[in-house]
Amino acid sequence: MSAGLPPSASFSDVLVLLQPHLAALDQTLHAQLAAFEPEIRQHAEYCLDASGKRLRPALVFLSGWRDGDAVSADLVRAAAVIEMVHLATLVHDDIMDGADLRRGRRTTAQAYGPSAAVLVGDALFAHALHLATQFPTAEVCALVSESTRRVCAGEIVQTLRRRTTDITLSDYYRIIELKTAELFRVSSQLGCRLAGYENDYQTAVALFGRHLGVAYQIYDDLADFLGEEKRIGKTLGTDFASGKLTLPLLALSERLPAAEQASLAAEIRGEQPPQLALRLEQMRNVGVFSVVVAAIRTELSAAVAALQPWPEKLPTPLLGHLAEALRIQVEALAPAAAL
Amino acid sequence: MSAGLPPSASFSDVLVLLQPHLAALDQTLHAQLAAFEPEIRQHAEYCLDASGKRLRPALVFLSGWRDGDAVSADLVRAAAVIEMVHLATLVHDDIMDGADLRRGRRTTAQAYGPSAAVLVGDALFAHALHLATQFPTAEVCALVSESTRRVCAGEIVQTLRRRTTDITLSDYYRIIELKTAELFRVSSQLGCRLAGYENDYQTAVALFGRHLGVAYQIYDDLADFLGEEKRIGKTLGTDFASGKLTLPLLALSERLPAAEQASLAAEIRGEQPPQLALRLEQMRNVGVFSVVVAAIRTELSAAVAALQPWPEKLPTPLLGHLAEALRIQVEALAPAAAL
Repeated sequence: MSAGLPPSASFSDVLVLLQPHLAALDQTLHAQLAAFEPEIRQHAEYCLDASGKRLRPALVFLSGWRDGDAVSADLVRAAAVIEMVHLATLVHDDIMDGADLRRGRRTTAQAYGPSAAVLVGDALFAHALHLATQFPTAEVCALVSESTRRVCAGEIVQTLRRRTTDITLSDYYRIIELKTAELFRVSSQLGCRLAGYENDYQTAVALFGRHLGVAYQIYDDLADFLGEEKRIGKTLGTDFASGKLTLPLLALSERLPAAEQASLAAEIRGEQPPQLALRLEQMRNVGVFSVVVAAIRTELSAAVAALQPWPEKLPTPLLGHLAEALRIQVEALAPAAAL
Repeated sequence: MSAGLPPSASFSDVLVLLQPHLAALDQTLHAQLAAFEPEIRQHAEYCLDASGKRLRPALVFLSGWRDGDAVSADLVRAAAVIEMVHLATLVHDDIMDGADLRRGRRTTAQAYGPSAAVLVGDALFAHALHLATQFPTAEVCALVSESTRRVCAGEIVQTLRRRTTDITLSDYYRIIELKTAELFRVSSQLGCRLAGYENDYQTAVALFGRHLGVAYQIYDDLADFLGEEKRIGKTLGTDFASGKLTLPLLALSERLPAAEQASLAAEIRGEQPPQLALRLEQMRNVGVFSVVVAAIRTELSAAVAALQPWPEKLPTPLLGHLAEALRIQVEALAPAAAL
């Protein structure tokens, strides 16, 4: 039974709980293909097949957890809507990044060309919102479409500021709140809302989702310097090479002497080739990793704190496990940092 | 008063009728900017400012015409939703076409770069569907999102078949029904539906819209060879140069001797530079223009015929004027064809 996870339960116990829900999600995602015009079904399938971590669906399910382990059709549909929006944004992201691989497979842009990939992303997104209209009210569609616009806004700001170096810490947080935390937030909010929890708890769960999303993006930005390539499925230093000024670089820059700062800035602006090995060594020397890990911990603590007034609600401990799982994943980067 | 247009009324009389409705549309479109994140407001504004022909909004208003000339907030909102979807697809089209200019202005892709343009298009589309959720039911959002997916499907097929020559007439019609006629159809259907006309008339008006859309796209494809550059706002032969096999080229190809057919095919596949002047001359010699104009007339007749059982409905004569206006515009190409 779902409700009775003991306090000692781990995230893998949560994953076991999620199993039937994620299986139902996959089934629903696959069933959407029939709605696509025959000519573009294979292209849509290519995008949907990308077996990601299904983090946003997990947030929907956990935020809407109710006693008993019945799979809720509403939550599955909401999770499918959000995952499709997310997959559509990945398709467009990969075009912009000129990425060849995602999760060990050719990106949609590589498989069908960038022009078709723009359109396939559009079609996925259109269908996601069409699926959202199958709820009795337009509310889900309204929340998801607004969220999507905010995700785009974050991506636009990031794109336009690529290869520029006048980005402050608050600019960085604004970008990741929009481009990543927004969809985490709406996943949590929708799950909780569709499960019928009261408004105040919805607000708390949405806040949890937002902080978790910020934490996740900072982790992702850190993994770009510190992850194992096999595990994160892309080349290290990709963000750096493409001129994205993320938290590890911001933290490094402000700890470097002026001359080094200027040469790092030139690398970000693309005026000099990026010296990844040197910058990694400097990051270790000035202690960038502990700074960044502290920033992630702050967000995770804020996420958990948002739920503290609601210990008796079923989603609370489950979401707590999710935050804890991310914390453990972040700690796992530490040995690499110490190398 | 709107209802009393005499049988002798012309399209310019219809344009006068539409004036307050189109003005309200512009106001509503402009008011949407406040909903965009401050960082992307100017980008959204850049796209919305493109003062197009507002054909799809005109279809919404005329298909939903009621006695009296009051501006209907529902029709204005539906028109704004559809026009924003259309503008979003134009932003993405221009990226794929590598177009520099649209309606005499730099395209969004030129102004902000192709990566940002992908995202600005996404944000516009997301906001269009968000606006659609302001209707009491999810119906408008459902119809528009489904239509958008079909538009994308048409564009995907066209993109993937660019520079290929095994396209049949029926492939061509399938592509333009999806990429163009679909949004014309849904504009007509929504206008009629929101105005409260009965289902059978909605079906007839939707059919009118679909045929008008097919006619319009064939006209557009013809104008690529025959228009005045100043009037159509782009270089002649753009489709040909980019390897799009449209009706004028299909009609030409099947009327050429085998050797010439092969060399035309090589030009479409990009193996030979396109010989625009030669192909125009051949089009004149074998009578391509009358074939294409006949195809347009067939669609316009089918559009008008769909409304014939409903002469007493107010939208019927107004939509008839719209079809007639397109017919006159097509005829105006004839002198160029005869040159």
